[in-house]
Order: sequence, then C-alpha cells, then structure tokens
Amino acid sequence: MDTRLPTFDDVLAAAARIAPHANHTPVLRSRSLDALAGAQLHFKCEHLQRIGAFKFRGACNAVQALDADTAARGVVTHSSGNHGAALALAARERGIPAHVVVPEGANAVKLAAIEAYGANVHRCAANQAAREATAARIVADTGARLVHPYADPDVIAGQGTAALELLSEAGPLDALVTPLGGGGLTCGSALVAAARGGAAVFGAEPAGAPDAFESLRQGRHVTELVPDTLCDGLRATVGSPNLALMQQLRVQALLATDAEVVAAMRLLWGRLKQVVEPSAAIALAVVLKHPEHFAGKRVGLILSGGNVDLDALPW
Amino acid sequence: MDTRLPTFDDVLAAAARIAPHANHTPVLRSRSLDALAGAQLHFKCEHLQRIGAFKFRGACNAVQALDADTAARGVVTHSSGNHGAALALAARERGIPAHVVVPEGANAVKLAAIEAYGANVHRCAANQAAREATAARIVADTGARLVHPYADPDVIAGQGTAALELLSEAGPLDALVTPLGGGGLTCGSALVAAARGGAAVFGAEPAGAPDAFESLRQGRHVTELVPDTLCDGLRATVGSPNLALMQQLRVQALLATDAEVVAAMRLLWGRLKQVVEPSAAIALAVVLKHPEHFAGKRVGLILSGGNVDLDALPW
Repeated sequence: MDTRLPTFDDVLAAAARIAPHANHTPVLRSRSLDALAGAQLHFKCEHLQRIGAFKFRGACNAVQALDADTAARGVVTHSSGNHGAALALAARERGIPAHVVVPEGANAVKLAAIEAYGANVHRCAANQAAREATAARIVADTGARLVHPYADPDVIAGQGTAALELLSEAGPLDALVTPLGGGGLTCGSALVAAARGGAAVFGAEPAGAPDAFESLRQGRHVTELVPDTLCDGLRATVGSPNLALMQQLRVQALLATDAEVVAAMRLLWGRLKQVVEPSAAIALAVVLKHPEHFAGKRVGLILSGGNVDLDALPW
Repeated sequence: MDTRLPTFDDVLAAAARIAPHANHTPVLRSRSLDALAGAQLHFKCEHLQRIGAFKFRGACNAVQALDADTAARGVVTHSSGNHGAALALAARERGIPAHVVVPEGANAVKLAAIEAYGANVHRCAANQAAREATAARIVADTGARLVHPYADPDVIAGQGTAALELLSEAGPLDALVTPLGGGGLTCGSALVAAARGGAAVFGAEPAGAPDAFESLRQGRHVTELVPDTLCDGLRATVGSPNLALMQQLRVQALLATDAEVVAAMRLLWGRLKQVVEPSAAIALAVVLKHPEHFAGKRVGLILSGGNVDLDALPW
C-alpha cells in the first residue's frame, strides 16, 4: 500500500487524468435551505457522479495512473459499496480485471452495481480485519494492485477534484463540509481548500462512528471503536495517512446523530429535490447542528452519493 | 378570461420578463436511462424551478405583464396545487394580493406551499365547475384578475420558456415530451419547437385522464371524462385555446397508465437521483412505452415538478 501523502499538485494531475471519464457535476442552491441554515449553501452534486458517488473520481485516478504492465494484472479493493462500484467501472473503462471484496450485510443496491460493472466479487465477514485479509490474499494470488478505498494518495487526490470543481463554480468559500468516513474525500478537499482560498474544512462524521473525531481530539489513531450508524458509507475507520493529513491541514470533525442525518436527508429530498444517501446528508446535518461555524457564511457541501435502496419506498 | 392564442414572440417576451425572477434550471443526462430508452434523453429540471414546478414561469409572466392599476386589485386562480403556489409567489414578489381556490382533496404539500407564500386560500368542491364558480365570485367581489392555470396566453407563453432554455442548452432535438394536463406547458413548448428547429411535440397524458388524447382523436373538445389517476397535476380538462393550439401545431398525445408512471418515477429517483412527482415522471413513461416515436433520437423531456408528499417515506 502506497502511503505517501498527496499534494495539491496531485489533485491537479488527477483532474486532468479523470476529465475524459468523470462527470463534471452541477452545483445546486436552495433559497429555503439557505434560510433554514442562515448561510449561503452550495451543494456539489456528487450523487450525480458516475456510479452515483464521488468515489469514481479517486478510483478512476488510481486506475488511470497505473503503468500498463501493472494495470494488466488488475486491481483489487475492499469496500462496503461505492468504492467497489467505482473501481469496477474504472477498471472496465481501462479494460483490466477488478476484484472487489464485499463484507456481508453490504447495501444491496451498491452490491448489484459492482456486479453489473463486471467485477469479480469476493464476500467476507463484516469487519476491517477480514476485509484486509481477503484483499491481501487476492493480491498474493493474482498480482492485482490494491487500490485502498481511502488510504491511498492517488485516491485522495482524485477525490479532491470535486472540491476543485466546486470552488471554480461557486467562487471563494468560507467553509467546506464533506462527509468523513475513511478520510479520502475530506483530505482531498482539504488539499484543495488550503491551496485555493483557505476555506475552513469540516469533516461530518456519524456520532455512532466517531473515530476521526476521537482521533483528532485525543491526538492518537483511535481504531478500536465499533461503528453503529445508518450511514453505511461512513463506517470505515479513518486511515493513517488520512489522519496525518487532517492534522496537518487543521481539518475539524463535527458529529451528527442518525436522527439528525435522517432529518437532513428529508430536507434534501424535499427542498433540493435530490435523492441522496444518509452518508451524503450528514454534511447538511452538521451545518444545521453547528451554526456557530457556518452562520452568515458561504459554505460548500459535498453531496457525496445517492445510492439508496428505493425498494423501501411505499410505491 | 383572455383566450387569444399566444405566439412564439410572446414566449420570447415572457423569457425577458421572468428572467429576474425564475431559476434557469439545469438539464440532466443519464447513461443508464439513455440505454434503457435506446435514445438520447435530455431532462429539463423544472422540479428545480421556484415552487418546485414549471408553473412559476407562467404565473410570473402573467403577473409581471399586468399594468399597475390592474395588478393592484390582485390576482385569483383555481388550482389543484402547483399553479396556486406559483401565483401566490409571483404575486408576493410583485407585492399584490393573491386568491387561490383549492379543491378539497388537494395534495397537502402543495396546499402548505400556497399558504406559506401568503395567498388567501378559498376551499371548494373537487370539480371543475365548483372551481370556476368560486373564482368568478372572487373576481366579482374584489376586482382581482383571473389568471387561469393554463387557458391564458400569458401563462402559455411563460410555460414555453422552459423549452426555450432546453433547446438553447441541449441543441437541436428530434422530439420534445411534456406532461399534458390543461395544456399550458404542452402548448408553450409547441410554440417554441415550431419556431426553433421543428422537434415533434408529444403531450404525455394519464390513461386515466385522456381528455386531450380523446379530443385530438375525435376532433372535438371532450370535456365529459372523469379523471382517475395519481398524477394530481394532470387531472384538469384540456383548455379550449390549448386544444386549438395543439391541433394547429400538430401536437400528438400519448398515454401511460399509473403503473407505468410509478415505474418511471422510480427510475428517475433511482437513476437520475431526482425527486419528481408522478405528473413529471409521465414524460419518461411515454418515452419508454412508445419507442416507435423515440428510438435512436434526441429527445427532450420536461420534468415538470417535484412536489411529492415525503411523509409517505419509511424514514
């Protein structure tokens, strides 16, 4: 695993590399949500990204950055969902094999997408150790390159391209809020914010999976927590290079409960008319919960994904 | 009621008149929906218009077109929902009173919006005659100007501005599909299509409220049908000037059942990640149902509104 820390130049390189493949997603505004938050909110619509989540940016950058010989042996990852689908699609576009390790209990919609993109799916137990062991075995068996969901410099740089587009469309921001799971999106965004205007960066983390919050607060890598949240994209433990970057770039973590996430999700569906998943809605949840950081300011929020299981709908 | 037929020049005038007030809504694409339809689909996002529906365009144009003395006496309309909210907001922006006649059983979300925009709400029985009689009484009592939801040249011209923006963003289209209720959006769109490239225009009408379809087929104004559809925005009987314009501009009506509408709505929520109401999803439903008109073509679809009652959601 490649754990060097990426730089803003890596984000710029990623933007050029993924431009032919990724969607340039729109930025949406809402008068009624602005009024509710007492702030000017700019929503970057990564749920309209390919595979329905920002994860395609990082996966595509990592796959496109491989030299031809390495690429030919394929790529492998472990992912609760969106990164797996992203890597599957990125590999298909380059014409190389993808192996995706999926924990039991993963979101059915996301699993179906991974299979639809032609990846080889490998099931494992629903814990971090089982994921990593299964991926390591596939690397040993096939020579495939591990593309970690977040603790990878090419992935982090790729995720940063969303914030780059957001700043170029919305103009200068006072604050930038991203969902925070493993830390790929948060770190990529923080690299961009630091280089382009200095917006304060906030990672929005579930109160039921506060490992990054606790790591920053305690000044050590807290890895022993057991996540309990409906934000299925944010259950991973923050990565080691991700934590280092967050400390270096002074990222703050803010927490929201699942109930606050659901309330924010309903607002985004009802007012912004966007189908976003809980792991995306948490960005709005923390903005509404912590007005001391956002009131009266220009705030960018990354709506990170929209892969919800609509079978739960009453129609 | 003003029943002269509007022209394309009226649409251009409306575009200039509403520009300071209305949202320029985005056009979205989806690879997976294109594949499903076997066509290139361009979705004009009028559910992201103010009040959550295209109706604001027509109401705003009608209100802004009034001379000062007429405007001061206020405006009145009867509407199952979105037009009522649209007129309420348009009147509030001009600082004049609005009266909205709402039939019993109207969508609760839309009713709440009408009240939130400060209109005077008048309830009546859920039939066309009761709506029109109640509105006429208010006109007699207050001197307010009736802004009919669709049988009004300023309203038709205003609704046409959505198609104008769609063509300017998407480029030439072979076909343009709009939901068809009273005929305001369909006629406004047909004026634009006729003047700008000649796309074939299709009105998408519920199989349970096929009055325009039957009127075109039988060559007479069919007004005796009783609507039975969950598309609450499409229950009105097509207007007389609207029918005349549709005949003149060779608009075709296509039907879809409620089950087909629900299937299309789920696709739009799941693939395009957009919260649209059934009355909007019907445009995609007819495209999927009638491939003989659309296969291999560049098709514009107007997603007319997104005001769904989310209290039905399981979260």
